[in-house]
Amino acid sequence: MAYDNNLLLDVLNGKEVSRPPIWVMRQAGRILPGYREIRASVPSFKHLVKRPDLISIVTVEPLDVLGVDAAILFSDILVIPEAMGVDYEIVEKKGPVFDNPIQQVSDIDKLKSGDDCLADLSYVFESIGATKTRIAGRNPLIGFAGAPWTLFAYMIEGSGSKTFAKARRFLYEEPEASHKLMGMITDTIISYAKEKVRCGCDVIQLFDSWAGMLTVNQYETFCIPYIKRILEALEGTPRIFFPKGAWSSVPSFKALDFEAISVDWKTPIDYIRGHLGGDQIIQGNLDPAAMYGSKADITTVVNDKIAEVGKRHIFNLGHGVYPDTDAAHVKHMIDTVKAYKY
Amino acid sequence: MAYDNNLLLDVLNGKEVSRPPIWVMRQAGRILPGYREIRASVPSFKHLVKRPDLISIVTVEPLDVLGVDAAILFSDILVIPEAMGVDYEIVEKKGPVFDNPIQQVSDIDKLKSGDDCLADLSYVFESIGATKTRIAGRNPLIGFAGAPWTLFAYMIEGSGSKTFAKARRFLYEEPEASHKLMGMITDTIISYAKEKVRCGCDVIQLFDSWAGMLTVNQYETFCIPYIKRILEALEGTPRIFFPKGAWSSVPSFKALDFEAISVDWKTPIDYIRGHLGGDQIIQGNLDPAAMYGSKADITTVVNDKIAEVGKRHIFNLGHGVYPDTDAAHVKHMIDTVKAYKY
Repeated sequence: MAYDNNLLLDVLNGKEVSRPPIWVMRQAGRILPGYREIRASVPSFKHLVKRPDLISIVTVEPLDVLGVDAAILFSDILVIPEAMGVDYEIVEKKGPVFDNPIQQVSDIDKLKSGDDCLADLSYVFESIGATKTRIAGRNPLIGFAGAPWTLFAYMIEGSGSKTFAKARRFLYEEPEASHKLMGMITDTIISYAKEKVRCGCDVIQLFDSWAGMLTVNQYETFCIPYIKRILEALEGTPRIFFPKGAWSSVPSFKALDFEAISVDWKTPIDYIRGHLGGDQIIQGNLDPAAMYGSKADITTVVNDKIAEVGKRHIFNLGHGVYPDTDAAHVKHMIDTVKAYKY
Repeated sequence: MAYDNNLLLDVLNGKEVSRPPIWVMRQAGRILPGYREIRASVPSFKHLVKRPDLISIVTVEPLDVLGVDAAILFSDILVIPEAMGVDYEIVEKKGPVFDNPIQQVSDIDKLKSGDDCLADLSYVFESIGATKTRIAGRNPLIGFAGAPWTLFAYMIEGSGSKTFAKARRFLYEEPEASHKLMGMITDTIISYAKEKVRCGCDVIQLFDSWAGMLTVNQYETFCIPYIKRILEALEGTPRIFFPKGAWSSVPSFKALDFEAISVDWKTPIDYIRGHLGGDQIIQGNLDPAAMYGSKADITTVVNDKIAEVGKRHIFNLGHGVYPDTDAAHVKHMIDTVKAYKY
């Protein structure tokens, strides 16, 4: 089925297009006035994450206000740990804080996993129908999930961290239990992502936000096998993989099945395509801080980036847009991309 | 002049040695009982940084207690911003907070720089004599400084940050003023490091802790020229450069004069030597979280790391030792290195 604007799916399916599609990580967020108003109307971020009616509104706002080529279902990667039994709160200016992080091996046995978690995630799946209705066939809808290590890191650490030293300690001290927990998280991500696709998501993006914390050997041992299993389970749905900071593991990504790789702003395109092949579809790579430049500067960096990446490119920032970014600058980036002709 | 244990200087001077020298970033810190006692005896971290008598004690403790091959003068990279006129406090569990960060271009004109800052840094230089006396010819003494971008980042941001978006915004919005400030910081680092050497430091390590925040182009434009100037000004003193996270800028480091490069735990040795030459002296690279493993595991990772790096290796962790690390495990790492024979 093709959407009115099918550009994102066309690129992911290897078709020729006349310009890169564009969407923006965190496009449904603080930079937009509708989002801020809705966020202010509920007591907490988590209340918003659990309201299918509001999710559909904030998810679709960027299509109307910014004119991006795809919507991404508003949610949080931490809904999975919560459904497994590790509850969190988002504390303003601090980030997620968990009441009952995993502290010992026996804590793992108390967790739910896989399909058993789906009932507790019904609010996510319910939001998809309302969102699709609101999109009304105009654009594809991306769904996302955190990758196993990133969720594991939060579940052990109990909060965000500059080092995730507690979570990394667990890998060194309890390798067997670590594999067990990674397996359970993986089962849950697969159940969750498949259900998202069944309900109408057209693309799945897997965020490994803390991939950059591990050594090459650890990523190979504790992450790649689980990511591989998730990507294989999603065959038939276009997959975007965002292994943030895991540059030294890129050679091993050849073994993984994904259509596009999302790339931070530190990573040269040549480096990625040198390892993964010249036809690798690239997403992202533009410095989110470039949005702080003038509109004239943004025009230049956008055109330079498209020229640098060439075809097989999904335009995006190399990270979620920073919350204090001027939406008019983001809109200018989007308009510049849409005016481009290969 | 050779020290009783001259191993570090021998490696930095390209001599053959029978095993890698070892020291540990943050060896003079929380992992040691003497440090914790002294830290508890003063009202704040900054009081300790400004007490030459105490600096010499905490600097030398790791030689006696851990048996490392070199001492590193206890201090903080933020003494330079303070001497320039941007004052800070270290807030427990939060890190540095600045009262008067740079908020506009005109703030830069109010700063001191270069030799004008030395009088305000006399407590650092005074501490060197006392420290050398206490070392009594046994081992070399490393002095350190933050690199220009890392100091710039704190001076603009006003605190630590996950993104340093404010500082990066300044680069995009005020490129000319950014160059001016980078130049002033550079002048100050040069004056400071040269004075440290004059007072008795044998080696200078330059920490670019936030190098990983910038694009390759930004690092080339806003950092490399200044780092080059500092390293050239220090010719004749062995220089160790630690550009944390700046992996994609490694090819441009060929233009820089340093003896050793300090490497985080994500970066494969092959990658560094592939770009900088097979004879590049490597420091670091061991995951600091590996200290959480058992002693038997530490024996294995230490021997594996020495075998991997080969000669021209200064053993160290890929980052400062984590404060909750068991000193007995660190000692075991050190003993294992000292038992090694090439």
